Amino acid sequence: MRDVYVAGVGMTPFGKFPSVSVADIGWPAVKAAIADAGIEGRQIQAAYCGTVFGGMMTGQRILARIGLSGIPTTNIENACSSSSTALHEAVIAVRSGMYEVVLVIGVEKLSKFGGGTLPLELDDWEVQQGMVMPALYAMRANRYMGQYGLTREQLALVSVKNRRNGARNMDAQFQEPVSVQQILASRPVADPLTLLQCCPTGDGAAALIVCSDPAAKHLNSKPIKIRASELASGKFTPGFRDMTTPEVTVRGAAEAYEEASVGPDDIDVAEVHDAFSIAELLYYEAFGFCGRGEAGRLIESGDTEIGGKVAVNPSGGLLSKGHPIGATGAAQIVEIVRQLRGQCRDRQVTNARLGLAHATGGGISGFDHGACSIHILSN
Amino acid sequence: MRDVYVAGVGMTPFGKFPSVSVADIGWPAVKAAIADAGIEGRQIQAAYCGTVFGGMMTGQRILARIGLSGIPTTNIENACSSSSTALHEAVIAVRSGMYEVVLVIGVEKLSKFGGGTLPLELDDWEVQQGMVMPALYAMRANRYMGQYGLTREQLALVSVKNRRNGARNMDAQFQEPVSVQQILASRPVADPLTLLQCCPTGDGAAALIVCSDPAAKHLNSKPIKIRASELASGKFTPGFRDMTTPEVTVRGAAEAYEEASVGPDDIDVAEVHDAFSIAELLYYEAFGFCGRGEAGRLIESGDTEIGGKVAVNPSGGLLSKGHPIGATGAAQIVEIVRQLRGQCRDRQVTNARLGLAHATGGGISGFDHGACSIHILSN
Repeated sequence: MRDVYVAGVGMTPFGKFPSVSVADIGWPAVKAAIADAGIEGRQIQAAYCGTVFGGMMTGQRILARIGLSGIPTTNIENACSSSSTALHEAVIAVRSGMYEVVLVIGVEKLSKFGGGTLPLELDDWEVQQGMVMPALYAMRANRYMGQYGLTREQLALVSVKNRRNGARNMDAQFQEPVSVQQILASRPVADPLTLLQCCPTGDGAAALIVCSDPAAKHLNSKPIKIRASELASGKFTPGFRDMTTPEVTVRGAAEAYEEASVGPDDIDVAEVHDAFSIAELLYYEAFGFCGRGEAGRLIESGDTEIGGKVAVNPSGGLLSKGHPIGATGAAQIVEIVRQLRGQCRDRQVTNARLGLAHATGGGISGFDHGACSIHILSN
Repeated sequence: MRDVYVAGVGMTPFGKFPSVSVADIGWPAVKAAIADAGIEGRQIQAAYCGTVFGGMMTGQRILARIGLSGIPTTNIENACSSSSTALHEAVIAVRSGMYEVVLVIGVEKLSKFGGGTLPLELDDWEVQQGMVMPALYAMRANRYMGQYGLTREQLALVSVKNRRNGARNMDAQFQEPVSVQQILASRPVADPLTLLQCCPTGDGAAALIVCSDPAAKHLNSKPIKIRASELASGKFTPGFRDMTTPEVTVRGAAEAYEEASVGPDDIDVAEVHDAFSIAELLYYEAFGFCGRGEAGRLIESGDTEIGGKVAVNPSGGLLSKGHPIGATGAAQIVEIVRQLRGQCRDRQVTNARLGLAHATGGGISGFDHGACSIHILSN
C-alpha cells in the first residue's frame, strides 16, 4: 500500500468558549490546516471528523461554514481517540488509492456541560458505583505507589513538566508554570490526585491535511510521513486486571513499533495521553521508555523533558494544553508535525526526527472496551 | 481494488424496548450475522459501528458482550446514514487489502427519549424557527402537489404499499396493513402528512459481515457482491433550493450507477429512505425510476410493488419496518441481501438480481450538510 503523509496542520487555541458553536470552533482549524498545506480547499476529496459530544453531522456543519460541503464526510466517535481514529481511517482511505487528499478534523465543545463530570454511560455498573475517571486513575496511582515506591513528589513532576512546556505553547489552555508545592497543595480530587494533576475540560479543534505520496510531491509544505497508524480496542477481562498496566496501549505500542520498524530508543518526541499525572508514568512503561516500576525515576531524571532522551508532551499535553476530547488526537499530531518540521521555537526538540502520538480513551471499567490509537511519524 | 462481498446478515426485530440497553439491543444482531455467514467470531478483524445516540464507544460495548473485544473498532455517526456510512468505511478497508473479514453494526435506542421529536441541533436557525423534519417534508409534499398535481390519495399509497410489505416482515415494527382511508383519517402531523405517513421512532440493530473475494470463497454462505458503495454530503445552498429535488441523492445515484455500470432499469429491488411518504416519491425521481413529476403515477401504477417493475421497500421501509436511525442503513442491506438470495418468502421479489439501498439523513436546512450513502449489490 502507498505511503501517506501529513501535509498540513492547524489548530485553535484550547480554552472555554461557551458562546461559540461547535461548528465555529471547528472551521478556523480547518482553514489553518489548508493554508499550512499550501493547497486550495477544493483539492480536499473527503473528510473524517472526530468528535464525541459535537452532535449530529458535526463535520458537515463545519465544512458548510467554509464552502467545502458536498464531499464525502464521516463523523467518528471513539471517546478520547476520536480524531486519532479519524486519522487512522483517513490513512486507510488514502493508502487504498481511493483519495489523494483527505481532511481530518478533531473538535469538541465541553464547556456546554458547564463543568464537572462529563455525561457517563449509565449501563456501566462500575460507573454506577462511583468509578469515574479520576477515581479510576487515583486507584492506579495508589497501586503504583504501593508497588513501586513512587512518591507524591515524583507524581507531581509530571504536571510540573507539562505545565512548563505548555507555558511555551500559545495554543495551550494553561500557560503558567506550577511548582511541586502548588500541585500538592491544590484541591484534592481523588487521592493522591490533586486538581493540578487532572486535565481540564475545554473546547477546541485541530485539523490535518493527509495526502498520498504523489500528492505530497506537488505541495508547497514539507510533508511528514506516517510510519505507523494503529487502532486497538481494550479487551474485556472479567477477572484479575493489572491496574498499572494499560494493556491496550502496550499491545498498540508493539503493533505500532513493528509497523514503523522502530523501537522506543528511536523516538525523539512523544505526545502521550496524560489525562492524569499517573497516566503519563504508566505510558512511559507501556511505550518502553523505561522498565517496570521505573517511571518515577524516569520523570525525576529529566530524560522526558525537552532536551532529554525522549521529550514527552512538549506541547504541554492534556494537563496543560487541555483536553477537548474529540480534538485531542489531532492536536497531538499537530504538535508532532511541528516538532518534526522544527517549527516549535522555544519548546523545539532539537533534531527531532521520529515522533509518536498516543490517544486512548473510554473503557471506564478497567481497561475494557476502550479505544487506543497510536501514530508514528518521521520527517 | 479488490471486490468486496456481504457474506452474512442479521437483525433484531425493530420496536420499542425501553428497558434494554443499547449494547443488549446490538449484540443479538451481531451473533445472527456471524451465524448467517458461517464464520467464527474470531475471524472478524475489525468492526465499524453506526449509531447516532448510542453513546460513547457503542461498538466496543456491544462486542464486549460477546467476547469479541480487542479488535479495532470505529464508531460512526452520519445521522440516518450512520450504518450505511459504516458499511462504506468497511468496504474501503477491505478493498485496500488491510482486512479480509470486517463486521458492520447499526444500532439505535430511540425509546430512551420517551417519544416525540428527537434532540435537534440548536445552532441551526431554521430548526429554531420550527423547521423540524415533518415540517420540512410537509413543505416538500405541498410543493410537489402544487407543481405536479400529486393527490393526497396518491401520497397515501406509499404508506399503503409499505405497510402491506411490512405485514410480511416479522422484523417490522408495524405488521398491520392500512388503507388509504385509515391513512388520511389518521392524526395530522404537518399537512398534508398524517401520522401514518411518518416513520415511527424505535429501537433495533442490524449487522453485516463484509469480506474480501478470497475470504468469500471459503465461507459457507452465498456472498452477495457490493457493486457500488457511495457516500455523498449535501451542498450548502444559501439561495434558491428546489425543494422537490433531493440534490444529494441525485448526485449520489449518478455516482453509484456509474460505479456499478448499471442504470435505473437494471434495478430489481430497492430499499429507499422513506422517512415520510413524500420522501419515497422524491426518490423515485432521484433514482430515475420515473421522470420529473411522474412519481404519483408510478406509485399508482403498482410498478413499485413486489411483482412490479422495481420493488421499492419490500421490507416495509422506514414507514413500516421502523427507523432506529443508526440501524436503518445496515437493515436495508439485510433486506437487499436476503432478497438477492431468495430468502424473503411471501415478500420475495422474483428473480431479484440487482438491488439498491439508500440511506440519507441530516441536513434539516433544505438539503444542506446532509449525508447520503448508496449501495448497489448483485448476486
